[in-house]
Amino acid sequence: MVGSVGNDGLMELGAAAGNGVGKGARPMEEQPPARREVVLGRNVHTASFAVKEPEADDDETGEREAAMASVLALYRRSLVERTKHHLGYPYNLDFDYGALSRLQHFSINNLGDPFIESNYGVHSRQFEVGVLDWFARLWELEKNEYWGYITNCGTEGNLHGILVGREVFPDGILYASLESHYSVFKAARMYRMECVKVDTLISGEIDCADFQRNLLLNRDKPAIINVNIGTTVKGAVDDLDMVIKTLEESGFKDRFYIHCDGALFGLMIPFVKKAPKVTFKKPIGSVSVSGHKFVGCPMPCGVQITRLEHINALSSNVEYLASRDATIMGSRNGHAPIFLWYTLNRKGYRGFQKEVQKCLRNAHYLKDRLREAGIGAMLNELSSTVVFERPKDEEFVRRWQLACEGSIAHVVVMPNVTIDKLDYFLNELAEKRAAWYDQDGMCQPPCIAGDVGQENCACILHKNNLGCFCKDWNV
Amino acid sequence: MVGSVGNDGLMELGAAAGNGVGKGARPMEEQPPARREVVLGRNVHTASFAVKEPEADDDETGEREAAMASVLALYRRSLVERTKHHLGYPYNLDFDYGALSRLQHFSINNLGDPFIESNYGVHSRQFEVGVLDWFARLWELEKNEYWGYITNCGTEGNLHGILVGREVFPDGILYASLESHYSVFKAARMYRMECVKVDTLISGEIDCADFQRNLLLNRDKPAIINVNIGTTVKGAVDDLDMVIKTLEESGFKDRFYIHCDGALFGLMIPFVKKAPKVTFKKPIGSVSVSGHKFVGCPMPCGVQITRLEHINALSSNVEYLASRDATIMGSRNGHAPIFLWYTLNRKGYRGFQKEVQKCLRNAHYLKDRLREAGIGAMLNELSSTVVFERPKDEEFVRRWQLACEGSIAHVVVMPNVTIDKLDYFLNELAEKRAAWYDQDGMCQPPCIAGDVGQENCACILHKNNLGCFCKDWNV
Repeated sequence: MVGSVGNDGLMELGAAAGNGVGKGARPMEEQPPARREVVLGRNVHTASFAVKEPEADDDETGEREAAMASVLALYRRSLVERTKHHLGYPYNLDFDYGALSRLQHFSINNLGDPFIESNYGVHSRQFEVGVLDWFARLWELEKNEYWGYITNCGTEGNLHGILVGREVFPDGILYASLESHYSVFKAARMYRMECVKVDTLISGEIDCADFQRNLLLNRDKPAIINVNIGTTVKGAVDDLDMVIKTLEESGFKDRFYIHCDGALFGLMIPFVKKAPKVTFKKPIGSVSVSGHKFVGCPMPCGVQITRLEHINALSSNVEYLASRDATIMGSRNGHAPIFLWYTLNRKGYRGFQKEVQKCLRNAHYLKDRLREAGIGAMLNELSSTVVFERPKDEEFVRRWQLACEGSIAHVVVMPNVTIDKLDYFLNELAEKRAAWYDQDGMCQPPCIAGDVGQENCACILHKNNLGCFCKDWNV
Repeated sequence: MVGSVGNDGLMELGAAAGNGVGKGARPMEEQPPARREVVLGRNVHTASFAVKEPEADDDETGEREAAMASVLALYRRSLVERTKHHLGYPYNLDFDYGALSRLQHFSINNLGDPFIESNYGVHSRQFEVGVLDWFARLWELEKNEYWGYITNCGTEGNLHGILVGREVFPDGILYASLESHYSVFKAARMYRMECVKVDTLISGEIDCADFQRNLLLNRDKPAIINVNIGTTVKGAVDDLDMVIKTLEESGFKDRFYIHCDGALFGLMIPFVKKAPKVTFKKPIGSVSVSGHKFVGCPMPCGVQITRLEHINALSSNVEYLASRDATIMGSRNGHAPIFLWYTLNRKGYRGFQKEVQKCLRNAHYLKDRLREAGIGAMLNELSSTVVFERPKDEEFVRRWQLACEGSIAHVVVMPNVTIDKLDYFLNELAEKRAAWYDQDGMCQPPCIAGDVGQENCACILHKNNLGCFCKDWNV
């Protein structure tokens, strides 16, 4: 018996997995109208699986092994359920790495620089460099002009890109739109950089007029800019060409460094016909993208590509590794590169293109169906992130694992999100919603015009505008 | 056919896996006597497995799948060989997570705070918190007084601990001994902190006299100290009590923050009888330890434990996660906590104690056998890291994946390093060494007295000292 890893623990796991709002969460009605407090998830401490000291006779009775196996089997069942009801995060949950399962027995570690072998032989640099080459080609940087590595997540990519920017321009100011990922502002704080938050348009894109105003207030210092290739909440793609033009027109020629945060969309945008190109032929310094998002991977990972010239200044040799230190982390997961290598080889550019098109098509379907049902919704032209009115019930939000901010929620349509799944979700939402909002008009859906524009809002004030859009359905 | 992932690639993999000194490496004889250049590993770019666009008919012919399977099978074979000949890095390569293999199909992500559930349901916080509780108990911090998380590696733990220190004392100076891990100095650079490097004793421990001299030069600023619980190269354990005493005697009472870097030894020291205790009952701020080192794990990971009071100041809520941001990374590997949970439950305190004792015993065996063979060697009392004369041949260094610095190399005796393995290594070393150094005395082993002390050196000048030690053998 593994103590609290018994029935109680498992019941709590069920609860943790989405049945109800727990400690720390606060129903929306209680929130002050002026400044809404963030609704935090439940505190996990009470539901954890304690580690218990084995009894002396455990090896003989086999009881502990059996109890652990039972915890793991129930946990696996909850993962199946949670994977099925997932819509809110940009993770492709559809992958099959069965062919790689035998590698799990090895402690694979790419510590140090991907291009310089360390003395530790159990590594996967051959795969890592193959993957990096693929991405460098995608973003048009020559083999002998790029440097990069496979990171632990999108945040590490941003931390690295912004650090490179700061090392290139030590007194540079970091500019990032208000809708940038939180890791960008974390970087500014960690690195003790001056940081200017730039306004966004209603779409979520950076407002280049406000950007210019801020640049002109700080002419004396170089600019380090985080450009979002798909914002976290609205999937908005900052206009890279306009950002560069704004910099040049404001007198910053050769005094700027651009990091492109392409967490999800960095890998989708090359396959979207009308999209502006992310390429090192433009004066950008680095691009990062997540590996567990569009590609899909059991654990978070990411790809960071930058110009080699910047890295030579940044890095230092680490003798006992016989390698170089230019990464944020030290030891690095050697399994992630093999997962990525495997998927890239199987799908190729053509495979990704097909998947991107399917995602965009399904995202349009979702937005149209939401509007048809009288629910305010927005979909940026280049994105598969559908923003809509936040469901009233936190239980529903948790069940579908929707990411929420203020009065809006979003669904990110990933390759594993099928029309069937969307229909299942839409039907459940319509049914629940009928109960949330009564017919006599006493309880109304929230106005989301401030978040997505009047033309995308279906509240009582704006729903006539939305009416026109409903006609688009079936186009 | 996957292009260069054919036979050539595989031959190169063989080469990369340790047969010979490649590009970038430089034999010792060529080194300038004054300042030795770091010997870097070979450049991997030429040996990588390229990702190739699939042919249109690949699905029908199955050729690509077959080529990939062949690459993976050969790669796996090289991992078996490399795992077998590994001695230099503190990784326990002996684990069996077969029971967890079915979880590899899930994208498990503990994004955000471990204690506050995010909306993403496919997580493993229940396991993570169980593991954290175990470590908090090990280091004697109450459940309601600690905060922590499972990191990607030891570096992330150091980055976090030092960041917490800086946020507690924004104008604090970072003190770290010269033999601290390179991530400590990377942190200082990243965080724009003033950093003072403190001398070490010959054992590798921090020299508290030099520490005090430096403190007295900087009385006006608080002190943030990195204390090594096992240095990377010599396995030296800084004297925590002496560090605290030095701080207090130098007038820094209540104006210091101590981070303990326990990468490898943080998990061994609690089980070594005579070792000084690492505990939060002493005025320390944080402890970090690696998970892939003593515990053993397929991918790097670590545990970071700190005082809750510090974190409340540092963190900020992230609404779209419904969680809190107090970690360095954003998305976090959810598999690592399950691996740790599994091993901790199976082994327990008693199991670790046995393994620690075995490692220390085997380390003594190695040191004694080396000395018996006339090879200079040192073993710190509390450590399983045996430091000895650097083998002359880089090929031998690569074959056994020894970590080297200057004229010394080390073997870290981990639970998977048996007496048989050590004998195999020792016999090979003795045989090779006879060829490296001729009997007529023209070519002599290097003097390592500067690294490990005269009493541990076996060079022509000092070998008479070592002679006395040889008598110890068989004790």
